[in-house]
Order: sequence, then C-alpha cells, then structure tokens
Amino acid sequence: MVASALAGAPATAAENDARRARGEAALAKITGAEGRTVVETIRRTSPELGDWIVDFAYGDVFSRPGVSLCTRELATVAALTALGNAQPQLKVHVEGALNVGCKPDEIVEIIMQMAVYAGFPSALNGIAAAREVFEKKGVQTSAMKAATDAAQPAAAPGR
Amino acid sequence: MVASALAGAPATAAENDARRARGEAALAKITGAEGRTVVETIRRTSPELGDWIVDFAYGDVFSRPGVSLCTRELATVAALTALGNAQPQLKVHVEGALNVGCKPDEIVEIIMQMAVYAGFPSALNGIAAAREVFEKKGVQTSAMKAATDAAQPAAAPGR
Amino acid sequence: MVASALAGAPATAAENDARRARGEAALAKITGAEGRTVVETIRRTSPELGDWIVDFAYGDVFSRPGVSLCTRELATVAALTALGNAQPQLKVHVEGALNVGCKPDEIVEIIMQMAVYAGFPSALNGIAAAREVFEKKGVQTSAMKAATDAAQPAAAPGR
Amino acid sequence: MVASALAGAPATAAENDARRARGEAALAKITGAEGRTVVETIRRTSPELGDWIVDFAYGDVFSRPGVSLCTRELATVAALTALGNAQPQLKVHVEGALNVGCKPDEIVEIIMQMAVYAGFPSALNGIAAAREVFEKKGVQTSAMKAATDAAQPAAAPGR
Amino acid sequence: MVASALAGAPATAAENDARRARGEAALAKITGAEGRTVVETIRRTSPELGDWIVDFAYGDVFSRPGVSLCTRELATVAALTALGNAQPQLKVHVEGALNVGCKPDEIVEIIMQMAVYAGFPSALNGIAAAREVFEKKGVQTSAMKAATDAAQPAAAPGR
Amino acid sequence: MVASALAGAPATAAENDARRARGEAALAKITGAEGRTVVETIRRTSPELGDWIVDFAYGDVFSRPGVSLCTRELATVAALTALGNAQPQLKVHVEGALNVGCKPDEIVEIIMQMAVYAGFPSALNGIAAAREVFEKKGVQTSAMKAATDAAQPAAAPGR
Repeated sequence: MVASALAGAPATAAENDARRARGEAALAKITGAEGRTVVETIRRTSPELGDWIVDFAYGDVFSRPGVSLCTRELATVAALTALGNAQPQLKVHVEGALNVGCKPDEIVEIIMQMAVYAGFPSALNGIAAAREVFEKKGVQTSAMKAATDAAQPAAAPGR
Repeated sequence: MVASALAGAPATAAENDARRARGEAALAKITGAEGRTVVETIRRTSPELGDWIVDFAYGDVFSRPGVSLCTRELATVAALTALGNAQPQLKVHVEGALNVGCKPDEIVEIIMQMAVYAGFPSALNGIAAAREVFEKKGVQTSAMKAATDAAQPAAAPGR
Repeated sequence: MVASALAGAPATAAENDARRARGEAALAKITGAEGRTVVETIRRTSPELGDWIVDFAYGDVFSRPGVSLCTRELATVAALTALGNAQPQLKVHVEGALNVGCKPDEIVEIIMQMAVYAGFPSALNGIAAAREVFEKKGVQTSAMKAATDAAQPAAAPGR
Repeated sequence: MVASALAGAPATAAENDARRARGEAALAKITGAEGRTVVETIRRTSPELGDWIVDFAYGDVFSRPGVSLCTRELATVAALTALGNAQPQLKVHVEGALNVGCKPDEIVEIIMQMAVYAGFPSALNGIAAAREVFEKKGVQTSAMKAATDAAQPAAAPGR
Repeated sequence: MVASALAGAPATAAENDARRARGEAALAKITGAEGRTVVETIRRTSPELGDWIVDFAYGDVFSRPGVSLCTRELATVAALTALGNAQPQLKVHVEGALNVGCKPDEIVEIIMQMAVYAGFPSALNGIAAAREVFEKKGVQTSAMKAATDAAQPAAAPGR
Repeated sequence: MVASALAGAPATAAENDARRARGEAALAKITGAEGRTVVETIRRTSPELGDWIVDFAYGDVFSRPGVSLCTRELATVAALTALGNAQPQLKVHVEGALNVGCKPDEIVEIIMQMAVYAGFPSALNGIAAAREVFEKKGVQTSAMKAATDAAQPAAAPGR
C-alpha cells in the first residue's frame, strides 16, 4: 500500500470524521463570530479554502494539546505583527487571544517585543490593530485604564 | 569597446526603437485600461518609472515568448499573493489574467495554493482581491455560480 | 450538529481515508526522491508536520484538478523566488517542475520575470538555485546548450 | 561588576539623562508635528513603546553623527519602500526627509531605485506615498512642476 | 523643559544606570554563552549596536514583567520562523527558549503552527533550526525519544 | 502610433545604443570585478537577465544624475539589509559603496539604523556581511581600528 511506505497507518475513519467537528469547535472557541464570518466569506469564492481553515488550521493545528491556546494565540499575534502584511488577520487573532483568556497587557507586551525582531513600524502597526480591537471589545490595558482614570476627576469626598 | 567586453553586440537601433512599441502593446493587451491609468498616474510624479514599466516590464519581460501570457499572469498572481504587500498590483494582475484568457477558477486555484507556501493570511487576502475584481468584471468562479444558482429559485414549471 | 453549521456535510470516511494515499502519490510524482527525504527528515522531529505535508499540501492542494501540475509548480517557483527566504524548498520545486514536464526554459522565464515583481536579487538567487538543480539533473536551458556547443569545436568533416 | 564583563563602563547618569532630551529634539527636527502625534497616539496604549521611539530610535540612533540626516532619511525611505508593509511610516519619513533638507527629486530617485532591489510594485506604492506627502506639503518634483507649467498657458505678453 | 512636553518625567539616573546591568543579566539568563558571543562579535565592528542589544533589547524589553520569559521566547521563535530570513538568530532563541524552561515539544508546536501563518517552507526551515539546537544541547522532543527508543532493542530480561 | 499614446517620443536610436555602454561603465565603476562575475555567471543560464542588469539596473537606473553614487549605494545597502533575504547582493553593494567613496563608518551607521526599521536580526546579519567585505578589502571602521590599536602595544620610545 502506498500510504504505508512513508508513514505509519493512515488516519482511521473515526479520526478523520472528527476533524471537521474539532475544527468547528476550535474556530468557535477562539475566533467567535469573527472567524465564522471570515470562513463564510471565503467559502463564497473558494469553498475548499474555507474548509481548509476549519479542518487543517483549526482541526489539525489549533486543536493540538501541548501548548495553551493563549500561548498559541500570542505566537500568532507575534508572527502576524512581524510579517506586517496581514492586518485583518492580526485583528482576528488579537480578538482570539482575548477570547481564550490572554490579558490585554500580555498582548501589548508581545507586540511591543516585535520592535526588537521586526522593527518599530511593525510594532506600531500592531499596536494600532490591537487598540482597534480593544476599543471594539470594550477592554483596556493598564495604560488605557490609567489614562481614562486621569481624565475623570474623582468624585469629591463627602458627597 | 566597453560594451563588447561582457556581452555580445549591443542592441541594434531597430531593436531598441521597438521596445516602447512592444511594451505599449503588451501593456494594453494584458492590463487594458487599468495599466494605462497606473502608468499615467506614475508619470505625473516620476516619468521615468512610468517609462520603465512600459519599456522594461512589458517591452522586455512580458513580451518574451516561451511561456503563455496566462502562465505569466498566474505566476505574477502567485508572487504578489505570497508577498502580500502589493494589493493594488495584485488586483491589476488578477484582471490581467482574465484579460489574457485565464479562467476565474484557475486564478482562484493558484491563490488557494499559496496557503501552502506563504500561509493562510496571504491566501485569504489574495482571494479577497480576486473576488473584488471578479465582481467588477462580472465574472464568476464555479463556486460563485453555484451560490448564485442556489439563491435563485428555478422558474416554476408550466409558466 | 456543530459541523453542519458552517459547511455542508463533513467528509465521508471514504474520502478522508483517501487523503493520505492521494498525498503520497502526488508527492512521489512531483518531488520524487527529494520530497520523500524532506518528509522523512521532518518526521524525525515533528511527525505531524510531515503528515501535514503529505495529507494537506499534496493530498488536498496539489491533487486538485483545474490547473496543470506544471502550472502549479511554476506558480510555486514564482512565489518561492519572490519570497527569497526558502532556497531549499525552491530547489525542490525547480526539480518538481522538471518532474511534471515543465521545460528548463519555462522555469528560467518565470524566475527572470520575478525581477519585475520582487527585484533583481530575488531573481538572481532564483536562477542560481535553478542552475544547481539543472546541473544535478543533467538538463540544460537553450542558453546553457548554446554555451556548451560554442565551447566544443565541431568534429572536423571527413573524419 | 556584571556590566563591565561585556562592555566598557556603563553610561554615566549625565549621559543617560540626556537621551530623552536628545530624542525629543531629534524627533521634533525630523518628523515635526507628525512624529509627535505618532508618539502620543502610541503612548495611549503602550507608554513604553512611545518612550522607546523617543529614547532609542531618535535619542540613540538618529542623533548619531557620521551620516547626514538627509542620508539617514533617504536610507529609511529606501528600506520602508522595499519592505512595502509600512505605508504610514513611509509617509512620515518622506515628510521627514523634506524636513531635514532632502529635495523632492532626491526622494523620488531613491524610491524609483527600489524597483531594482524590491520590484516595481514596491516602487509604485512608494511613489504613491511620496506624491501624497508632496501634495500635502505643497512641494513638487521637477516632473510635477513641468506638468503644472504645461497645463497653465503663459500669460500673454502686453496684458 | 523639552522632555516633559511629550512624556512624564525623564528616567532618573538610578533607573538609567540600571539598564546595562539589567540587560547583561537578562542576556546571560536567556541566551547564555551564545548571546555573549554574538554581542562580542558585533562589538568588534559596531560597539554601539552591541550596546543596544544589551541595553535596549534585553535591558528595556526582555526585562519587563507581565509575560513569562518562556512565552517571550516562544513569541520570538514564532516571529523569526515566520520571517524566515534570520536563521542564526532563530537558533539563538530556540536555545534561549530551552534556557528559560520551555520544553522541546512546546518549541516544536509553535514552529509547526507557523505553517498556517507563514507557509510550510518557513515551518520546515524552523524545524531544521530547532533540530540542530536540540542535538547540540542533547535534548529531545517526544518524537525524537520515540524514534531513539524504537531503534534501540530493549535489554534482554534476566540479564 | 501606439507608442506616442502614453508617453512622449520614443527613445532615439542614439540614446538607445548608449544604454549598454552606460550600463557597462556604471557596473564597472560601482561593483568592479564582483559585478562582472555576477553578470557573467547569470548569463550562462539566462543571458537576458544578465543584459537587464547591465542595461536596466545600471544603464537606466544607476546612471541617473540627481543623487550621488554613494547615497544610491547606501540606499541599496539599507534596503537589502532590511529585506534580509539577499546576503550575496548585500555584500556586492557594501563593496560597491566602498568603490564609489562611501566610508566604512557610514556603511556601518546605515546598517545599524536598520535595527529600528527592520529589527535587530536584520541589522546583525547586515553587519556580518559588511565585516566580511571590509576584511576582504582590508578596510576598517573606527571601531575596528581602535580594537587593532588596543591589541598592538605601542613600540617603546627610544628603541
């Protein structure tokens, strides 16, 4: 049999059938409504590319154990910030990082760090993408909170 | 003579005079009105860069035999999708591919393939660019046609 | 059912079981011994990444109809030349292009064309990669043949 | 002492205190109001990244002697045009180049040259960025002036 | 005062003096002997670039709290794998990830994931870099251990 | 006539004939023996790509007035350092920068500056390329001279 020449036994039917379900679940958990919209939009022009996102990217890759989903999302944010040519996807994964429990400050730390590895323009554009998502989701970094607090005079005591 | 030290005889005058005409013809055939607008716009700031597009890119490179124009355009679509930092030019060459006879499904296949070589974000952004051009030109991939047909209820029999 | 929310019916077991076999066959046809070595080497550190090459890259993507294998390989050569950061993979796919029937002159044409879209350094490094593969495989472009012929004096007539 | 193991004496307090002031001065001289806005915007999400722009990028790097500020800005314009993934920063540095005395024609020459090293799409998008800045600042290249002059009929003599 | 126009109070002398020491300590902890060699080599041609690595990259960026050093190193591995143009630095940071307590399997997971965001060639070259470091350091992923165990017949019982 | 539709009059024969000679002269002046070897090597596989280097890159682009050759070479060094995927060409242009009168310290300054725009790995690999060329050519930066002087004890007076 051809398949056995290179690898072990091919995936069993049960395992194969589970890819789509695993992928859908991971996509929903990580990207929420955003990811679903992306996949549905892509499917209108290329149904298979939409399937590959679900089955391969989320069913095969993001469903693997061994690294927390927050670490996976921070690694994705790091890579997309460094590449600097995929702003829409960067925003989806900043939101994904929030969805799986990363804190806004962690996301900003990782984007800042990219100034060292990919230069300041990549880091600046990454921060701009993150800011946009934070505002849409109504979350704040420590710095954003401090600025908001500074702008609002504290209620006078005794009132 | 300096020129003969490295290469054979320099281009004859007749060959040289033909570059501009060859380039104009290739530009018109491949990019239609889009390319002309790009070149005219560039010439307002940098006339020579506009000339180089016509003379070098189209007169020297795209006018060469040995590979079909459709294959050349698909290679350009592949490269621009993979680089991911030249969306306006990607759209011009998706339209160029259509102009020289590539089919919408072929263009989409090549963009999808870039998921393997440059990652999913590049492929997704490539599909978005292609979709925009397809809608402007009124052409459809098989998947787009299927979706359109599914959305339009067939005329009732007997009418 | 979760899976049906986004897409149609999930892949049947028969279709899923066929991915590995399709991938192995496409890998063997396109990359020959080179691809097998790459996959086996990767599997020693990351078995799943090796599987994904076979199942996804070759079983899902390269096995699709609609574009000839030579056009797919030329598009890959174009993209890897343009990206310029994957010389080992570029060599594998120059050889892959030869394996599926592309001519050396076609491969060189597409790499030359990248001077327009990704700059001369990318094109020069692409030509160097192609030259190395051509010499290993004992094939020649028209220019290489002309240079060889020029260097070998024709046998004297009458001998 | 740890610090002396790798380098000479650590920076003195006086030298260290001067970084911020040097950075502010260089930022103001080179980028004018644009740079200040960028830094203030970044600081609302990531105060430290804003500091690093001032202290490191401008206080440490751009304040160094040995190369003129115009040459530094042209090198930045070259790099950002070639990378092609940082249009907002490219515009800031086209304006920066003008602010430190580079001429519009010099800026355009360097962007045009990038067609050779990074391909025509990068050069075209670079020219578009430069054009936008030139129009905002009311400056013109020789080509822009020639086009303007050609469009305006000279006042008739004797009137 | 100029400095206060954009930011708060400039760094105090005590804080500034601490940058070098913080940077040296972080560099030693994360990159061990490798990082020291890199910095010393760079200093022979550009002393200041060597200083910036210590003071800025390690003293300012990597010394920040808020994200674990292992997460920072995995983000760096992700970015350098995705960029694909900095193999020497990728190897330094694969070793750095091990030095700060990341497990070989985690490093491989993050590199594999880059197949989705930057394409398979980047992931393959990342795995090759990681493998080289793992062998030098004498560490193994689960897959490497399984292969080693399979190749060594178990000692006969009763001996 | 087609050509006149987009641009002014096509190049005259005299101007066209001069491209090759101009290109050969610029290539020789800037890159010396290195550039000739590159062009000859490329011509063995792709004669036309070799011609385009001479005629377009050197005859059309590098022969233009308006920017000094040293500034052009520094811009090329900046771009190739930032792109980080063309080390052989970077070395040719570091040597080219020296050939047209740039000082070693200027070259190093521009490469260092790329740490800000493309990240430290690009700058480090750029410095390594420059160091290699400096040693081959027997030139030194101020830092290299200082290190050499420090390593050689001064001759004792009176001996």
